[in-house]
Amino acid sequence: MKSLTKYLTVNTRNEHEYINITREVADAIRESGIKEGLAYVGSMHITSSVYINDAEDGLIHDIEQWLEKLAPARSDYLHHRTGETNGDAHLKNLLLHSSVTCPVTNGKLDFGPWQQIYYAEFDGRRQKRIIIKIIGE
Amino acid sequence: MKSLTKYLTVNTRNEHEYINITREVADAIRESGIKEGLAYVGSMHITSSVYINDAEDGLIHDIEQWLEKLAPARSDYLHHRTGETNGDAHLKNLLLHSSVTCPVTNGKLDFGPWQQIYYAEFDGRRQKRIIIKIIGE
Amino acid sequence: MKSLTKYLTVNTRNEHEYINITREVADAIRESGIKEGLAYVGSMHITSSVYINDAEDGLIHDIEQWLEKLAPARSDYLHHRTGETNGDAHLKNLLLHSSVTCPVTNGKLDFGPWQQIYYAEFDGRRQKRIIIKIIGE
Repeated sequence: MKSLTKYLTVNTRNEHEYINITREVADAIRESGIKEGLAYVGSMHITSSVYINDAEDGLIHDIEQWLEKLAPARSDYLHHRTGETNGDAHLKNLLLHSSVTCPVTNGKLDFGPWQQIYYAEFDGRRQKRIIIKIIGE
Repeated sequence: MKSLTKYLTVNTRNEHEYINITREVADAIRESGIKEGLAYVGSMHITSSVYINDAEDGLIHDIEQWLEKLAPARSDYLHHRTGETNGDAHLKNLLLHSSVTCPVTNGKLDFGPWQQIYYAEFDGRRQKRIIIKIIGE
Repeated sequence: MKSLTKYLTVNTRNEHEYINITREVADAIRESGIKEGLAYVGSMHITSSVYINDAEDGLIHDIEQWLEKLAPARSDYLHHRTGETNGDAHLKNLLLHSSVTCPVTNGKLDFGPWQQIYYAEFDGRRQKRIIIKIIGE
């Protein structure tokens, strides 16, 4: 079994940001030399997510509106008693999840034509990290 | 390390459909000869999901109602400016996710008694694909 | 390739409970001797979840309130025609999901500083099981 571990660093300018990281994951798979296996891609934080969906700006706007409706920014989260103000970012992370696992076949992401991997930041303007871990042969 | 990759093709008659694919995954595991490992099962689309829950018709109806409440069909999604009308199907996919990873032990899905793998279609009446990828030994 | 499979048994006193199982997963990784790989941690039930987020009591209270809002206990779920009363627990499971996959690097969970693995029970006061499956080398 072979494995490769890579860390990406993200510094967002905005509190919320959606960043397509499919190319970085594809590059890591190529670098690993792994032909058949699984690629794990995860946020190392609990206020940002990694998800798979379409690279379409209108849809990303829809996702942002939808997350705000289901997991709204509010002042009265109990989590804020710690001094934090990012309770909604934790809930948005739970809704979209921290990570995805992706199939690797013939040395490539084995995806359908519209699947793209996104990093979604909900508590940005600080340094964050993404881990890519590929295992296989 | 061994691996097996299988693709299932789905052609739904309805726009929304819930299809139990546990047997197909179990068959693929048997075919792989893998005794200990992980089985990845994922939709290759961004408007359908793979999830694990109970094979009970009432519950499936509840899930359908619940998804419609949390990620409703609407005419005003920005994604529809592309000509699509399936914005809600993208959000339903994000809610339930594209894929599951399953433990394989002694050559079988290592599940509790009620766990079943479902493919949930939210934008059907067209050909869709599911990928099963098993790695292990 | 090496693998280790462990089962944890949980007996909650309350219907809803949030239990930090990060140490149990870390112990299983150590026991496996696996240095590079993936650790799967999943509920073997469809009315409880495994998720990753912060070990902070206020936040856990916020999560509980939020789940109750998005997937409320109701008497009129069709699933209840089977005699069950736990329809909401199934939906809460779907919202947070059954399992997480975690990267293992240098024999340890390769997590950011705030990531903790939780078992969330939504239909407790009975014996439940969690499976940990680690594969790698």
